[in-house]
Amino acid sequence: MATGKLLVCGLALFLTIKSNLLHSQQFTISFQRPSDCGVEQFYDISSQSCVKCGPNQSSSATGLSCECVTGFRVLATNGASITCQQCPLEKPAVTEDGYGCILCPGSLTEQGTCQCPSGSILVERDVQGNPLEEARCEVCNGAEPALSAPDSYGDRCQRCQASLINTSQSCMCGSNILAGGLCFPPNNLPTAVNPNVNYAELSLPVQSAWFSTNLYSSAAACLVYTNLTACQALGNMCVMNMHSFSSVANDACGLYNTIFRATAALGSTQDISYWRANLPWLYYGDQPGLANRVLQTEPLPTGFSFKGRNRNTDINLVAAVYNARGDFLQWEKVGGNNLQLCPDTARRQEAAYTFGTAYQETCVLSVADLLRVYAEPLFYDVFVDLSRGEDRRLLPLPTRNLNQEYNRKFINRANLNDWYLSRRVLLVDTLSGREKSLGSLPKVIRIASSIRIGFQLVPGTQKGQVFPPLLSVTYSDVVITAPNTQTVSVLFAVEYEMDQTEAHMKTDIALGVLGGVSVLYSLVKTASWKRRIGSPLIDMETVLKFLLFYAGDLANVFFFITVGTGLYWLIFYKAQHFVSVLLPLPGLQEERFVAYVGCAFALKTVQFLHKLIQQLSVDIFFIDWERPRGKANKTIQGNGIGEAKHDPSPVSIWRTYFVANEWNEIQTIRKISPTFQIMAVLFLLEVVGFSSLALRDPWSDLQRPPQSYSPPYSLTLRYGLAATLWLCIGLLQIIFFTAFHERFVEDKIRQFVDLCSISNISVLLLSHRCFGYYIHGRSVHGHADTNMEEMNINLKREAESLCGQRGLLPNTDTQTFQISITSRLRLQYDRILEPLSRRNGPSRLVDAASGHPFDQSTKAYHTMNRFLGSVIDHAHRDMEYVVRDKLFFERVIGMEFMEPMDKSIFYNDESHSFSDVLFYGNEATLLIFDTLFFCVVDLGAQSFILAGVLTYFQQMIFRLIRNGIGRRNLANKTLVDQRFLI
Amino acid sequence: MATGKLLVCGLALFLTIKSNLLHSQQFTISFQRPSDCGVEQFYDISSQSCVKCGPNQSSSATGLSCECVTGFRVLATNGASITCQQCPLEKPAVTEDGYGCILCPGSLTEQGTCQCPSGSILVERDVQGNPLEEARCEVCNGAEPALSAPDSYGDRCQRCQASLINTSQSCMCGSNILAGGLCFPPNNLPTAVNPNVNYAELSLPVQSAWFSTNLYSSAAACLVYTNLTACQALGNMCVMNMHSFSSVANDACGLYNTIFRATAALGSTQDISYWRANLPWLYYGDQPGLANRVLQTEPLPTGFSFKGRNRNTDINLVAAVYNARGDFLQWEKVGGNNLQLCPDTARRQEAAYTFGTAYQETCVLSVADLLRVYAEPLFYDVFVDLSRGEDRRLLPLPTRNLNQEYNRKFINRANLNDWYLSRRVLLVDTLSGREKSLGSLPKVIRIASSIRIGFQLVPGTQKGQVFPPLLSVTYSDVVITAPNTQTVSVLFAVEYEMDQTEAHMKTDIALGVLGGVSVLYSLVKTASWKRRIGSPLIDMETVLKFLLFYAGDLANVFFFITVGTGLYWLIFYKAQHFVSVLLPLPGLQEERFVAYVGCAFALKTVQFLHKLIQQLSVDIFFIDWERPRGKANKTIQGNGIGEAKHDPSPVSIWRTYFVANEWNEIQTIRKISPTFQIMAVLFLLEVVGFSSLALRDPWSDLQRPPQSYSPPYSLTLRYGLAATLWLCIGLLQIIFFTAFHERFVEDKIRQFVDLCSISNISVLLLSHRCFGYYIHGRSVHGHADTNMEEMNINLKREAESLCGQRGLLPNTDTQTFQISITSRLRLQYDRILEPLSRRNGPSRLVDAASGHPFDQSTKAYHTMNRFLGSVIDHAHRDMEYVVRDKLFFERVIGMEFMEPMDKSIFYNDESHSFSDVLFYGNEATLLIFDTLFFCVVDLGAQSFILAGVLTYFQQMIFRLIRNGIGRRNLANKTLVDQRFLI
Repeated sequence: MATGKLLVCGLALFLTIKSNLLHSQQFTISFQRPSDCGVEQFYDISSQSCVKCGPNQSSSATGLSCECVTGFRVLATNGASITCQQCPLEKPAVTEDGYGCILCPGSLTEQGTCQCPSGSILVERDVQGNPLEEARCEVCNGAEPALSAPDSYGDRCQRCQASLINTSQSCMCGSNILAGGLCFPPNNLPTAVNPNVNYAELSLPVQSAWFSTNLYSSAAACLVYTNLTACQALGNMCVMNMHSFSSVANDACGLYNTIFRATAALGSTQDISYWRANLPWLYYGDQPGLANRVLQTEPLPTGFSFKGRNRNTDINLVAAVYNARGDFLQWEKVGGNNLQLCPDTARRQEAAYTFGTAYQETCVLSVADLLRVYAEPLFYDVFVDLSRGEDRRLLPLPTRNLNQEYNRKFINRANLNDWYLSRRVLLVDTLSGREKSLGSLPKVIRIASSIRIGFQLVPGTQKGQVFPPLLSVTYSDVVITAPNTQTVSVLFAVEYEMDQTEAHMKTDIALGVLGGVSVLYSLVKTASWKRRIGSPLIDMETVLKFLLFYAGDLANVFFFITVGTGLYWLIFYKAQHFVSVLLPLPGLQEERFVAYVGCAFALKTVQFLHKLIQQLSVDIFFIDWERPRGKANKTIQGNGIGEAKHDPSPVSIWRTYFVANEWNEIQTIRKISPTFQIMAVLFLLEVVGFSSLALRDPWSDLQRPPQSYSPPYSLTLRYGLAATLWLCIGLLQIIFFTAFHERFVEDKIRQFVDLCSISNISVLLLSHRCFGYYIHGRSVHGHADTNMEEMNINLKREAESLCGQRGLLPNTDTQTFQISITSRLRLQYDRILEPLSRRNGPSRLVDAASGHPFDQSTKAYHTMNRFLGSVIDHAHRDMEYVVRDKLFFERVIGMEFMEPMDKSIFYNDESHSFSDVLFYGNEATLLIFDTLFFCVVDLGAQSFILAGVLTYFQQMIFRLIRNGIGRRNLANKTLVDQRFLI
Repeated sequence: MATGKLLVCGLALFLTIKSNLLHSQQFTISFQRPSDCGVEQFYDISSQSCVKCGPNQSSSATGLSCECVTGFRVLATNGASITCQQCPLEKPAVTEDGYGCILCPGSLTEQGTCQCPSGSILVERDVQGNPLEEARCEVCNGAEPALSAPDSYGDRCQRCQASLINTSQSCMCGSNILAGGLCFPPNNLPTAVNPNVNYAELSLPVQSAWFSTNLYSSAAACLVYTNLTACQALGNMCVMNMHSFSSVANDACGLYNTIFRATAALGSTQDISYWRANLPWLYYGDQPGLANRVLQTEPLPTGFSFKGRNRNTDINLVAAVYNARGDFLQWEKVGGNNLQLCPDTARRQEAAYTFGTAYQETCVLSVADLLRVYAEPLFYDVFVDLSRGEDRRLLPLPTRNLNQEYNRKFINRANLNDWYLSRRVLLVDTLSGREKSLGSLPKVIRIASSIRIGFQLVPGTQKGQVFPPLLSVTYSDVVITAPNTQTVSVLFAVEYEMDQTEAHMKTDIALGVLGGVSVLYSLVKTASWKRRIGSPLIDMETVLKFLLFYAGDLANVFFFITVGTGLYWLIFYKAQHFVSVLLPLPGLQEERFVAYVGCAFALKTVQFLHKLIQQLSVDIFFIDWERPRGKANKTIQGNGIGEAKHDPSPVSIWRTYFVANEWNEIQTIRKISPTFQIMAVLFLLEVVGFSSLALRDPWSDLQRPPQSYSPPYSLTLRYGLAATLWLCIGLLQIIFFTAFHERFVEDKIRQFVDLCSISNISVLLLSHRCFGYYIHGRSVHGHADTNMEEMNINLKREAESLCGQRGLLPNTDTQTFQISITSRLRLQYDRILEPLSRRNGPSRLVDAASGHPFDQSTKAYHTMNRFLGSVIDHAHRDMEYVVRDKLFFERVIGMEFMEPMDKSIFYNDESHSFSDVLFYGNEATLLIFDTLFFCVVDLGAQSFILAGVLTYFQQMIFRLIRNGIGRRNLANKTLVDQRFLI
């Protein structure tokens, strides 16, 4: 048994080991590359490993097969393997095909084949293919009529190069100039050309192998033989030298210009005077101001339109492509990635050629990739394709090469009038920087790191006409040190511009006019304020006050101008059929707009804080009309004004508490829900996708597919959109709350007035020294301090209109008044409150002497209550008042024309304007302040979410401040303990 | 004067016209392409226009130059232009170089040169290059030892092809098989091969020109001559046929398999039995279950780790690249765009090869582009590079070709055990679909439209070990109809997977255990509820109640399990050094998680609604202790319980109004600010960038540069992140509000209790039939219905502890109680309220008879006030109560052990648990409900902003409901008019 078990165990163990062995390393192979194989190995492409060659064999140049070593011929091939045999001494050389041995007339090459002197060919077989015993070296006959020379293999005589024959009528160049394999007769061109490529940004001239080899020969072939390809090659070298020229005539562009001048007799091509026949067109002329004329004189024949039947947003660019040798390759439609070096999907790249879509793409490219992909530089002559049907026409795109130098100065970086426009661009030049040989790694490469196509709208066009677009190219020079880690960042952009001076002028006019009006309005406000504080003097405070009012009004001016501008762009840009406006460019053109928004915000903040501080220091008093019941049994009608002293049943203070508590609660209610506002705006912008409207393209789709190109945002549009949305939702909310909610659900302000009436308490508010509001709350039932039964009866009586009306004057309903009080009244008011205000001052010796603070405060309360009650009841002869309606014009400009000299004046005020001392009555200021806060944060951070969150916190903080300090003020002024203001 | 004016006008007009003429059309050229030029024109690459050729000339093949027409020789070249001369009759033919005329031995070609019969060469010059008078046609000697044949130009005899010599020892193939230029001896392969490529998805076999030409010759060369390149070419044809094979042996894969079997004797390569020597490795074996063994047995030797010193996240893939002809091109590092067809920046594409970053990129490619870029198909043998230092090893990547057929069935689309793994993939095949010739447009092209590399973690690994990744390829066949408009969408993805069964099991266990516990807890709750409603019966309502409780508890279980899971993934995935967990895949693996979240939300909603309804129907009454003052002069200490009837000075109801109003206001206050909560969460997620943590990659950077690759989001991580953040901010808020705000700023609940005390009003709350809360508010001063003076004195006395304590029991401070009342008490309570509740019922005849509703309600109010007051004052013998502390265990399980049989029981409750009938006391439920709401919306819409906005609206709506209905309930139950609840 035990043995059996052991056996099973052992077997299991063995199997486990075996399976482990089988599986471990089962599928891994060693990693060998052709370069890893030795000289006697070849790389077996089937097994992907190095395999030893047979005897007398070594690996071929590719390393993928074996070949016989020098002196050995191939005896037999058997599949992939060969057999080699040493050539006998009498035939020591191997034939060119490797299969035979042969005797040489001369020496042997290193590879063991026969070598013939230059100008001779090696002959190993006769004409019929029969092998010769001994190879022959035959001299090609270079004279007429043979004119022959060895071909590149050196095994046949063929007609020699035409330039040799043309120059010398033989295959020898002789005393002429031999350059680049061509033979030139003596000519005007300097033979000592400058083969340096100047990398001006690096201050590093590189002696270019390409220029050394080809510059003179191209120039000479172009001039002497009118070789079109050579002319293009010369032009391309000039382009590789950044179109830069100076007085030196022996660099690429110098040679080009020399030839340009020398061939003036040939005339120009295509009726363009800058385009010499046979030469490539590289420069516009050098007259001053030519750039301006070329760019801003004649618009393109077809206009662009965004919508409708004639919709035309396609920018058709085509390019003639040449390689460095000057060969014409093809006409290419510009698009895809021929000017755009950044890889991206075709769909996104195509967006660059949709008129009106601000396109900008940047990326970082690896230098190693550039070297691999752009081994050969390509040169592009870019045109706008104006073809309509059969009429096929092209407009050359003027190019502004920002690296172009003229006498060592970057002329195209200065102002427009000094520009030298040019033609032909290259994208990546890895060729000119090769120093020693064309096969070596370049020392420097040059990349078109910024390509911008700029369109400028014809001023005042209604048909979408634009001037010829300008192609601006900036090249970067990269010194190659470690290509695998080096990177270069490139940019491709299409920009649309219009002249904004007219728009700026209009804005300035609006600003001037409205600013002037607002000065007047602020003056009126200041005057009104002066009257309300009952002071006729013009002092520093008046000036300050004027400035504060002016800040508010100017803020409104700025706000409405900026919103108007933003909305203007939003509507006109997005809705136009034929293109007539283009967005202001980021940066300079938008700077002024952003400054205006900043002004609006700063001024609005001043106004807001001013209002806040005013609200926090308002004077308020609750007048309790309730008189102790005494023994007067159920005299409901009696307005017990009597002096019932020392009644055992005191009047309860709870009604006052209730009213004060409610007043405390309505301090920060608003006509809108601020949080709903934020949420709704965020929802519309970020979820519904309104933010797409602020993209710099002419489309107005809200949801864009994620694969499509997303242009950058326009600050102007973002502001216009956000402000408009905010205002719209705010207005909708105000309409909803005033028209529906307050009418059918709950109106806090109305409720407060009702509460005053029911609780038999009047409210006196003094927002200025001699101006304020009065809410008449005397109960029509005489008593309110009663039990539930009576309260219910009272309410019911009133509902059934069985009792008097609530108004201050008999038989009126008006409970709320604006009041202008006389200075005398105000003085009396202040005198009663004096002992209390002293309490808040620094502690003095007299304090100890004065009564208990509680006593003082209650005494003051009772005195004030009695005093104000008597004033309202016309019980004070010298503090009389009249009730009248406010004039329409008084309402409009917010100023009282009559001064309360002898009598105070109570103005009927049905519109509850006492809410002006609450947030409720200042909704406009708050809404605009919130709008500006939201927009300013968004302009700074380009994030609606951050703007929403910060606006929330701002609202919260100001609400807390208003509530907290307002509550303390309320407690101080009404003498109601803070503990009841909850 | 007039003339002068006219002259000036005319001049101005002339100048305008002239300048217009000068500028208009100045810079436009007509658009001509080489293809636009006629036969007698050439395309001038300088002027980019068509130019007429000289006499007797026509354009060359490229169209860029002119050449002499047939029968004319070039007489002279002058730059770009040539002169042609007709050849004389005695020498009618033009030489090959075009410069001479010659007599032919035979006929002339169409181009006017001499024509020699096949097997002959044309000789126009002698060996030294001297032109012959008459051309000769020489026959190449094909026999030994010359073995020569004409070269491709037909102007030299050279050694003929080796296979001819090998087969027939001459340059004739003779009776052997000549195929593809090679000569084969008779062999086993079927000569009638099947050149069809089967596009199975289209059910469209195409007779491929490539297969027709090369299939037999490749197979034969591979088998007969062991030609390695031919073997690769054969293999590539099998790959182009999707590795599909059947019993037919004459298609590409059939031939491959035939050769595979025939060469068994050669053995295998690299110790891999599926890799035959000299052949490419195309298939893993066909044993059942082999795929499973290959993929899930042996992990890669090196583990991956995300952090620390041994950080290793690089996936090194290399590929051996072959072209269709079977040439080995190079070893390539997989990366950049060699497997990724979608264009993108290198930086983003590299992200695919960072372990742990779920990579997925899709795009739509234009078929025209594909045809242009992928003219030649490339074949990739992909390996994992395991090299460490000198030890260079590769692991072949098993490939799952989803288009592979076996006997006309897609075997690799079924389950894992039936898969046939293979090797070698191609990306775009534009070759095999060419039907007539290799130069024609393909009829069908095939694109690897989905390439997925899947990594599977070794279960239980702590070292980041993974199994060999699997490369899954799906090909799409596109019938070429209009390549310029056709598109094809492609996908490249790298996926990481781990076995989730263990995690699922653990979740299930947790769910089972906690679910069981929650059943018990719900039972206890039900029992407690039964006791509190004072009913011992188990009826349908009990079962329903149990289910409702259970819903709440189960919701918590689901919630904590899902949050725990989410957090687990978040922490463990993002924080792990060595990889030990990988995220669940979207789709199947996350389905269960999402279902759990859905359950949690649904159940929580049930619980929330249940609580809401409970709160909206709570019974409440305010007991006013104030007694009319009558003639009792200032008896502050006297607890006037007396029956002072018909007092002329009624007790004011305003304190009750005040308390009711405050109660109304605290109904929906919470321990947190819900809007702050939303804003803070949105701020953290979207502005600070916490949302980046939910990306499916191992990095924990919050802000990612916009250029970097952004992987898709993981639902699990999003949920974990959002829920955790929400809970954390909620908890922080609760801590802030309870520890700071309520202590130092404002505690609404405490304030309410204080207010009760100051206003001499107690509150009785009955949340269940026989259970509720009691807030003892009897003023320590006996009277509260007094004037400000007395109030202030009272408050001051209390502040200075000069009066009694507020507690219900003498010398205690405890004002708040939980109460278990006897059924008798409850019955009495209901009886008093009966007339009122009837009022809300359908109107009945009796209504008219009954008194006025006002009367009824005030009567009921007074009765209730008296009754409850007397109960609290122990004035009812049969409704006695005792005060005691709650046992610790009673507190914990929330159930009273003692049943209130004879006496009601008042439990001291310092923790204000009466807030359980407010939002305030149910913060946990609300917070979890909000969390789930937020997360569920986000899971559905993948938008935190939408989730935030909707959560805000949800909170607003429920707050409005709670406030509105709660207010009505309050008005009904306390008989306080709704108008005072503002």
